[in-house]
Parts: sequence; structure tokens; C-alpha cells
Amino acid sequence: MHVLTIGAAGMLGRKLTQRLVQMGELAGKPLEALTLVDVVAPDAPEGFDGHCRLVAADLSAPGTAAQLIQSRPDVIFHFAAIVSGEAEADFEKGYRINLDATRDLFEAIRHAHAADGYFPRVVFASSIAVMGAPLPYPIPDDFHATPLTSYGTQKAITELLLADYTRRGFFDGIGIRLPTICIRPGKPNKAASGFFSSILREPLVGQEAVLPVPDSVRHWHTSPRSAVSFMIHAASMDLSKVGPRRNLSMPGVSATVGDQIEALRRVAGEDAVKLIRREPDPDITRMCEGWAPGFEAKRARELGFVSEDSFDDIIRAHVEDELGGMP
Amino acid sequence: MHVLTIGAAGMLGRKLTQRLVQMGELAGKPLEALTLVDVVAPDAPEGFDGHCRLVAADLSAPGTAAQLIQSRPDVIFHFAAIVSGEAEADFEKGYRINLDATRDLFEAIRHAHAADGYFPRVVFASSIAVMGAPLPYPIPDDFHATPLTSYGTQKAITELLLADYTRRGFFDGIGIRLPTICIRPGKPNKAASGFFSSILREPLVGQEAVLPVPDSVRHWHTSPRSAVSFMIHAASMDLSKVGPRRNLSMPGVSATVGDQIEALRRVAGEDAVKLIRREPDPDITRMCEGWAPGFEAKRARELGFVSEDSFDDIIRAHVEDELGGMP
Repeated sequence: MHVLTIGAAGMLGRKLTQRLVQMGELAGKPLEALTLVDVVAPDAPEGFDGHCRLVAADLSAPGTAAQLIQSRPDVIFHFAAIVSGEAEADFEKGYRINLDATRDLFEAIRHAHAADGYFPRVVFASSIAVMGAPLPYPIPDDFHATPLTSYGTQKAITELLLADYTRRGFFDGIGIRLPTICIRPGKPNKAASGFFSSILREPLVGQEAVLPVPDSVRHWHTSPRSAVSFMIHAASMDLSKVGPRRNLSMPGVSATVGDQIEALRRVAGEDAVKLIRREPDPDITRMCEGWAPGFEAKRARELGFVSEDSFDDIIRAHVEDELGGMP
Repeated sequence: MHVLTIGAAGMLGRKLTQRLVQMGELAGKPLEALTLVDVVAPDAPEGFDGHCRLVAADLSAPGTAAQLIQSRPDVIFHFAAIVSGEAEADFEKGYRINLDATRDLFEAIRHAHAADGYFPRVVFASSIAVMGAPLPYPIPDDFHATPLTSYGTQKAITELLLADYTRRGFFDGIGIRLPTICIRPGKPNKAASGFFSSILREPLVGQEAVLPVPDSVRHWHTSPRSAVSFMIHAASMDLSKVGPRRNLSMPGVSATVGDQIEALRRVAGEDAVKLIRREPDPDITRMCEGWAPGFEAKRARELGFVSEDSFDDIIRAHVEDELGGMP
């Protein structure tokens, strides 16, 4: 089994590599080779005996996609993307990376398929950003994608391409609409959604965090651990059961900010909760109101995708995976 | 008012030009100039005194889009497309014309907007082919687009681009999801859906027609006359009421083949109905089962788009517009 991960230096890409190396196999076949690609060369995973190639490359540069699949990886995980804020700030860059580079990859596979029957599994990290307000709660699986950002538009277009290339038999694709990842490990970042993680992550290590929105804001979350499990399951499962609708809204936990805080109180106590400082920001609050409150994710659940059941479990996953089990 | 129509030599393009010339105005402004574009130069419209430019051009050729908007048309009607069967038979051509050429047009407008604030109305002819089975009946406005053809995929992607370019303020776009056009005037063609028109059109002039599917097949129709009215209304209406969801499923008449035949009987009598010869074709029947049976089209109706109320009216529109009122 040869796995190619594009966007391997990102948070989820790194966690996916770690998990694959721990498992030593994918879809019942021993993990023999890893090709890890990002704009900066990813770190080599620890404890992997197989063949590992670390590549610094820009997928949007001509010829790069064809080069990456030259060795015919069996499974391709595609995470690489310009994030939402940057895709909104730089229209051309967003379309070049999030749409054109991905299409280059799909085209390279199509040409390889025509040349020698190459037929990889392609697991695409899509996003709940394909949805745009007004949104029902919960959002059913058959709800239309009307994104309100260029990033969401680019993800929604890639979903359509993935379904068409799959239907045409060029590759075996599946799109995974990831919930917001919470608790995102690491330092606070500037993403408008960053507070969903920081109001838990910082208090868990005794630091203050700022909450810019009311407790009533509801959003859709899953842990990094579950997100990685989604990608692994998508790479392993029998896709013949999925049919032509290849883009799946993943399960997750729908929670208000108030629910998140109550879960923090239960897991880490009142002292942690006291570290959350309320600083209302009308701009962030307005943005949040357009975000997805939660999904039914009926098809994904039936197909065996599993997330946490409660926000307590999401916090515990962070404590176990990032803090060595010590709150 | 300067109108640019891309795909002006097609059936709907020609009818739209005729209507505009008859009206002599669009959105309350006198019609002063027409630029009519297609791969073969469109015919000059009769009775038009204004400035008329007839252009034979391939929109997918580099620089063509920029050239077409050089004179800054106020309204752009975009019909040009490779049809469903051809887009399925020639993957690359379908994407080049139906996706890339349209994106070239959108990009040319974006650059013109940056250069001098150019801000046209863009009316895009989309299609119910953005929907793919299994489909509910009626299909609600918020149902997801999961096309089962490359043509439908290309239309769905263009819808997403149109919404994003509009949201960004590069142009004022609206996508019109046209029902199947019935009765399509002219000779029988090879489209799999051609029988919906031919079982009415041929008997109305005393000729035999072949029906390849069972009477129970249900589909979604509008007349050429209504389709042209949709495009005109889309070019004239106040788009500020539409919000960011800029792609609208149009109203129409949902009818089974049996309903169509009963309408023919009422309008043209039993002798016409006897000219329909049943020759079941399992392939065409299977394809039909994936097509849209009908839409709620609630938003479009609220926004003032109007179609026929019955299939009898659809047949009468054909008799009036194509047969000089004589059945």
C-alpha cells in the first residue's frame, strides 16, 4: 500500500501520517510507502520502516500533479488548501490553489488512467463551508450547497468534479465534509473561528482565552482524532455501497458555545471556566451566524463514520491526545 | 441598452433576439445595440434599427471573452454550451466549452470591473440537469445538485462561480435553471429527450412520431415562449431581492407522457394521437427515470417568473408561435 498525502505538513495531515504509521496498514494491506507533500517539506514520520518520500512542492505549478502520481500511489489524501480567510482576501490565489491545482491533480489521474488503467482511491478533505446561511438545524444530507465564501465555493466545485471523475471511472473518489475541528491543538491563530478551540484549549493549561460571541452561537464540531478516523475510513471502506453521491457530510457534535463551556466545567472545573473572558465582537458574531449549526449526517453514519457523542468526549480526546491525559 | 447574447444562433437565442427587437426595450431602457455571438455568425434580426454586430467566435479561444465585452454591454445572456450528449461523449470538449469558456467570460468581466468599474447583468442559462436521481417530486428549492452527467456537472459548477462572482461584486449574475423546452420547434433531433417534443410536434402537422418510453414517465417542461420570458425577466428584475442564492429553478409544467398525450387529444383530436407509434426503448426509458419529475420553484414564482399552467397551454403556445395558430 502506497499512500500519497497532499497537504501533509498541516495539522490533520501530520496526525493522519502518525495514525497510518501506528496502524502499519490501510484497507487491510501493509503500509509500504508514504509520499508526503506540502509547500514546505513535511517531517519524516517516526517509526516508519517503509519507503518514505518527503516532497516540497506547489501543486498548482505545471507538471507537479503528474510528477506526484508518477509512482502510482494506491490512495491519495488531498488536504492541501488555502484557508478560508486567505481565499477571501486573495481571490486569484484561492481559485488557483483550491480549484485549479486540485483539478490538475484530477486531470493527471485521468491521463494516467487512460495510459495504464491507473485507478487510485482519492479522499478529498471538503468542508462544511460549502453550506451558506440561511441554514436549517439540523441540515439534512440533501440540502443544497450555496456557499458564502470563495473557499466554500472552491470546495463545492471540487466536490462536483470529484463526483463526475468518479462517475466517469477515472478514479474512485470520496469527499469528506469535515466539521470544524475542535479542539485544534497548538497556538491561537487568527481564524475567525479560532475561539471555538481557544476557549477550551487555553483554560485547560491555565491560560486566559477570549470569547467574542454570545453563548447562544451553535456550531458543528469534531475532534482531530475523529477527523483522521473519517479519512482512514474513507480510504478503507467499500465505496460500491456509496453510489454516485460521493460527498458526505460527516457526523459531529452540535453545540452552542454555552454547551462547550458547560462541558469544560464538567471536565476541568470552575477554575478553567473562569479563564474565559467575554469580549463581544459584532463582526465575528455576524460571521458565526452564517455558519453551519449541525448536520443530520445520516448517510455518513450509516456508512460507518463515527464522531464523538458529546462535547465532554471532544475535550477528553484533546486531553488524552495533546496533554498526555492530564487536564 | 446594449445586449450581448452568447449562443445567439441557437433556438432560444434566436427567439430571445426576436422578442427583444419586438419589445424595443429591456429593463425600461431603449434597446440601442445588439451583439449576437455564436460559433457560426447568427442571422441579423429583422426590424431592428439599432446597432447590430454579428460575431462568429469560439468563446473558449484565448482573448475572445475580453474582446466580446470590450464595448461593455449592459446585459449579457449566456446560452452557449455543448449539449448533454456531446459533453458526455467528449469529456475534454465539454469542460472546455461549458466550464472553462464560461469562466473566461466571468474572468474577463472581473478584470474589466477592476479596470473601470464595469458591472453588467449576467443571465446564465442553467439546466435542470444539475439534478441527479434519486429525486423527490416535487423537488424543493433547497434540494442539492448531484448531477449524473458531465453536462449537469458543468452547469452546476458555473452556477457556483456565478454566485461567487456576484457575491464578490464583480457582476450582477442570475442563473436560470431551464426546464426541458417543449415543444421544441424544428426537425426531430437525436437527443434522448427529443421524443417529449416530437410526439406532439409531428402529430400536430399530420406526421408520425415514435414514443420510446411508457406513458408513466414524468418530466418537467416549459414552452420556448416561457423560457424566453424567464431570461427577459431575469435581465429586468430587481436582483437586490434575490439575495446571494442566485440560481433559481424555474416554474414549469410537470406532466407524464400520458398527460402530454391527453393534452394533445384535447387540443388536436384523436387523429393526432393516433400518429404516435409506441416503440419501447429500454435504454431511453432507463435514462428518463433519472430525470427531474418536477420542481416546487417556489422562489422563482415569488420573484415573478411565470410558466404555463397546463400542457394544453404549452401545446397552444406552439400552435400560435410556430404554426400560425392553425393546428
